[in-house]
Amino acid sequence: MLDLRSDTVTKPDDAMREASRDAEVGDDVYGEDPTVNRLEDEAADLVGMEDALYVPSGTMGNQVAVRTHTERGQEVLTERESHVVKWELGGMAQLSTLQVRTLDGGERGVPTPEQVREGHVEEDLHRPGTGLLTLENTHNSKGGVAIAPERIDAAAEAAHDLGIPVHLDGARVCNAAVAHDVPVERMTERVDSVMFCLSKGLGAPVGSILAGSEEFVARARRNRKLFGGGMRQAGIIAGPGRLALDNVERLADDHENARVLAEELAGVEGLSVQDPETNIVLVNTEGTGREADEFLDACAEAGVQGTQFDTHVARFCTHWDVNREDVEQAAEYASEAVERLD
Amino acid sequence: MLDLRSDTVTKPDDAMREASRDAEVGDDVYGEDPTVNRLEDEAADLVGMEDALYVPSGTMGNQVAVRTHTERGQEVLTERESHVVKWELGGMAQLSTLQVRTLDGGERGVPTPEQVREGHVEEDLHRPGTGLLTLENTHNSKGGVAIAPERIDAAAEAAHDLGIPVHLDGARVCNAAVAHDVPVERMTERVDSVMFCLSKGLGAPVGSILAGSEEFVARARRNRKLFGGGMRQAGIIAGPGRLALDNVERLADDHENARVLAEELAGVEGLSVQDPETNIVLVNTEGTGREADEFLDACAEAGVQGTQFDTHVARFCTHWDVNREDVEQAAEYASEAVERLD
Amino acid sequence: MLDLRSDTVTKPDDAMREASRDAEVGDDVYGEDPTVNRLEDEAADLVGMEDALYVPSGTMGNQVAVRTHTERGQEVLTERESHVVKWELGGMAQLSTLQVRTLDGGERGVPTPEQVREGHVEEDLHRPGTGLLTLENTHNSKGGVAIAPERIDAAAEAAHDLGIPVHLDGARVCNAAVAHDVPVERMTERVDSVMFCLSKGLGAPVGSILAGSEEFVARARRNRKLFGGGMRQAGIIAGPGRLALDNVERLADDHENARVLAEELAGVEGLSVQDPETNIVLVNTEGTGREADEFLDACAEAGVQGTQFDTHVARFCTHWDVNREDVEQAAEYASEAVERLD
Amino acid sequence: MLDLRSDTVTKPDDAMREASRDAEVGDDVYGEDPTVNRLEDEAADLVGMEDALYVPSGTMGNQVAVRTHTERGQEVLTERESHVVKWELGGMAQLSTLQVRTLDGGERGVPTPEQVREGHVEEDLHRPGTGLLTLENTHNSKGGVAIAPERIDAAAEAAHDLGIPVHLDGARVCNAAVAHDVPVERMTERVDSVMFCLSKGLGAPVGSILAGSEEFVARARRNRKLFGGGMRQAGIIAGPGRLALDNVERLADDHENARVLAEELAGVEGLSVQDPETNIVLVNTEGTGREADEFLDACAEAGVQGTQFDTHVARFCTHWDVNREDVEQAAEYASEAVERLD
Repeated sequence: MLDLRSDTVTKPDDAMREASRDAEVGDDVYGEDPTVNRLEDEAADLVGMEDALYVPSGTMGNQVAVRTHTERGQEVLTERESHVVKWELGGMAQLSTLQVRTLDGGERGVPTPEQVREGHVEEDLHRPGTGLLTLENTHNSKGGVAIAPERIDAAAEAAHDLGIPVHLDGARVCNAAVAHDVPVERMTERVDSVMFCLSKGLGAPVGSILAGSEEFVARARRNRKLFGGGMRQAGIIAGPGRLALDNVERLADDHENARVLAEELAGVEGLSVQDPETNIVLVNTEGTGREADEFLDACAEAGVQGTQFDTHVARFCTHWDVNREDVEQAAEYASEAVERLD
Repeated sequence: MLDLRSDTVTKPDDAMREASRDAEVGDDVYGEDPTVNRLEDEAADLVGMEDALYVPSGTMGNQVAVRTHTERGQEVLTERESHVVKWELGGMAQLSTLQVRTLDGGERGVPTPEQVREGHVEEDLHRPGTGLLTLENTHNSKGGVAIAPERIDAAAEAAHDLGIPVHLDGARVCNAAVAHDVPVERMTERVDSVMFCLSKGLGAPVGSILAGSEEFVARARRNRKLFGGGMRQAGIIAGPGRLALDNVERLADDHENARVLAEELAGVEGLSVQDPETNIVLVNTEGTGREADEFLDACAEAGVQGTQFDTHVARFCTHWDVNREDVEQAAEYASEAVERLD
Repeated sequence: MLDLRSDTVTKPDDAMREASRDAEVGDDVYGEDPTVNRLEDEAADLVGMEDALYVPSGTMGNQVAVRTHTERGQEVLTERESHVVKWELGGMAQLSTLQVRTLDGGERGVPTPEQVREGHVEEDLHRPGTGLLTLENTHNSKGGVAIAPERIDAAAEAAHDLGIPVHLDGARVCNAAVAHDVPVERMTERVDSVMFCLSKGLGAPVGSILAGSEEFVARARRNRKLFGGGMRQAGIIAGPGRLALDNVERLADDHENARVLAEELAGVEGLSVQDPETNIVLVNTEGTGREADEFLDACAEAGVQGTQFDTHVARFCTHWDVNREDVEQAAEYASEAVERLD
Repeated sequence: MLDLRSDTVTKPDDAMREASRDAEVGDDVYGEDPTVNRLEDEAADLVGMEDALYVPSGTMGNQVAVRTHTERGQEVLTERESHVVKWELGGMAQLSTLQVRTLDGGERGVPTPEQVREGHVEEDLHRPGTGLLTLENTHNSKGGVAIAPERIDAAAEAAHDLGIPVHLDGARVCNAAVAHDVPVERMTERVDSVMFCLSKGLGAPVGSILAGSEEFVARARRNRKLFGGGMRQAGIIAGPGRLALDNVERLADDHENARVLAEELAGVEGLSVQDPETNIVLVNTEGTGREADEFLDACAEAGVQGTQFDTHVARFCTHWDVNREDVEQAAEYASEAVERLD
């Protein structure tokens, strides 16, 4: 069975497993795990920030960032389909009592500077003031689109002009950097903090990074503890996490495989495919007269798994455990699946 | 100075003042204030609900309703310009840790049944379930538009089909009823709870009503206490509140005055005016080349006060303390103001 | 039926009712109600603070104070039987996500400076920092004991030395001042904010005051709005509230009546009575072999109402609507009640 | 340097490191990590529960438990020195808006059934209802005392009689079981959920277990996601976690070493030592005329690290990385330290 449901299913390779076994460790709650400390330093460098924090998940990274940037009673401005508002169980309100105000970021899921200015609210007697802008790159719910650094800069600068800090949900920001052929730090140049995942395309088994200024990370560390993200000999997972940092360029393979997969699927009668910019391929099934879940059931019977994205949209995700032949095979399975649907 | 900033500025008349003086009172926290109890009964009747609760403000009525309908961890679906999300300091998140998800209700600020169905989320591992739909009538931020009962019914039924309760922010629902020439209870037929204000157009000095089922109101009473809305000899303000219930038909005068005001203002060079449906008149100043705040400053110098609604939109609101001559005078002042701007 | 359940049942007298009728009013959300403004000025003077805010209830005053003094993530230090933790529905956690840490204030319900110092916590990786100390005077759950100003000062100074602000729940602080024969402002000399009730012993139908520095009150005003405490022509209730400020000295009568009542009840076989310091009389029923609720049922049949305070403790409260003869009569009814119990 | 600061500093042994390298893994957010699944089954068996959940930390286990057992607006009853209220950043209020009410559990930190009954509150108009009782065994802040299963049973039964569920913070419940020479499941017989740590004395690098009924764990899984505890190929750390389950009996060595350490330290002039019941040794420095932090500084210079527990109390903790000779050496270092202090 080819598993194209998500890049989160990537399994650690042997080098990563060895890195787990051999990691030098200490108690990271005391700040004494040398492997975690090295990972945090290297990860901060990758995104051009002063300091970084290792967290057990991307969700925790985002929610810690949101809490650390804001004060009680403020409002967070974000794109309406962003992960932080759509897929994190309402954490901004649940964990930090923050109201969210959403902007429609259009097809690419990025608000314009004008939208930021219009969406921004000055605190007054009736309104919570805007305390944070969050952006997302690549934008998951828009199909992994890789937003150009200039558009991130523009939105961030608009926020800064209003005195609002900016957090980037960069779960897949390395994919965005590779797609735009720039260093990762170029993608985060104007934001105040960024979360990116060591799992997903970079291949680590567990963990994400939250990076920002030294002062920000010091306060974030405390919020990580509050959320229960303080781990002990975390070097065991930070070890493979360090290797993940070397996998950025490898993401180009995933993108190329996604391109191939998209091309092949576009040739299947009844399917229409959005041009992938990174490692996510969205397939519309309307032309088959069937909904995405029926198509995906048939795909699974044929031998490839994807996930439902919308009523008529299925998603396939390329990753490290999937090579060129696999995606060609996957396209064949999808073709068989469409035939079975008739 | 003619004060057309809001109908909230209405002052109680002599009958209301006498009703304050003469109110039979008791300790309402013990449920022993006979005037409050009568008001709650009569108010429940007006909106066709089983029971009602007297609260010190519309904001409290809305926030108590939201909290009473939901469980921790849920999401509230509402219109993106609704008062409950825009003007209540983020209370749903602040006071009840609820994430809000907004629908674009278009020009009239009312979501369609399809939007409700699409916006609705079933609770799963990543998403908070939708716990409540709130609607607003008349819709304040859309310029006091009076939404037809059938549209409220349709949205509410869509929610009910999904198992979601519906709260109506009816701060000015009596205006809506008068505009549609139906009894107030027709406007609330399919919703589970409604808040409406005794102050504003109905003229009471203080207070609003939250109405719903007996069971709902019993639980809402406890949340009112939590928010600090439990008052003692509240009959002193509930007395005039009872008289306010007799003022529903009088709102037709405000609507007629708003119509007259709009007509007169539409004749002023440079101003364009949205046809008022109730007692709110929105005036666009773009034709004058000036922003609304400049126009309003000039109006205030001339002798009439309004409020800024948007960069180029000013709002004038008719109410009980303003008669036909006043609005004609107001239009003249506005005309003078435009002249001064040149 | 003599109602000694609470001083909250006091009904406004004719002068107060006239003050309601005749109050000059405006829209207090705009800050334009002259009666409210005067009340706030006069109330601030009474407690020696720069500014004050009129709120619909004591609970709101306390909860607004707690929220205004603190930041998200802090801890509040308070006495374990204090009203703010025991009788306000857990509002500090519910409305402001604050953890409470309680001190045992002993028989008089006031923590010592040493307890404050020991209870105080510096923010670190595992602990929320202490953000506020609240005190209560008179202490309700301890039987209306009037804590000496020196003890309030001492606890407050201990907190200030640690950089912690202090809020006084002075629902009945005027009773405390009268009991100690000092001006009310002496009781609040070292605290940063105080809430006191215009209802209860001072006799107003509705409302309480939250006083503090100008800057504090400005921010508290916004939190009042959040909680739904922003009222419109509130002069109707602020008018009688102004008269309430003149009733401080009158509280001596309530205290004297409580003393008489206590003396009479102490003479009843089977009852033991705590010496009242203000207007609250606690009666222990253990000597009758019956629990307080049975005793109170018998009292109510005889003609006097009180409330249960603990399994074997009943509470009677003197107030403006009860005179010397009433309390003597009440003691006779209680005596009859004990006889009936046998 | 001998590190006796905490058993959290234990480093994984070679077998555990091999288990990391060799773990069969999958995406645990999809429930597909076989190593995590096995660990959860085995851990549930150890504590006699239906199901279990792997979480990155003990704090997350406790906070998820608290949230899963309760509804918005309730109150949690716990011991005043318990970890959940003292060392978790106020999480119950911060993350779940729950008020805490504390009981004084005396020297052993366990409330009596009578205290539970007295502390319990029925929800009414003024009071949040008690929604949960939490217990702790061994009790950290009391010096690792091992509470007898009968006392846990008694408190839990008192809660159950009132309809209140019970969570056991059993971070070191295996130490308690070993100290009482009973199976671990005997310690959790009457509680509804238990959290215990795989790190600490059991030696795993990362992670804790939250166990309870199937239905409870299903809901807890969602709250784990909310807090950011959903990890991907977590088998890498769950693998050593499985080995940790075999280390329960080994804790007897830590207890024996603590006993030896305590005996030796008791022989040092100026130190007085509480008899250790498990692996925690509390040393009072008052007899030396110096505070604990000075004593600990001197210890560290001599060659052994501990932590400050109170002004005059230092804590030493035995664990897997410390053997009999180490603790004898540690006692000598402590003796040298006292000499240096003079």
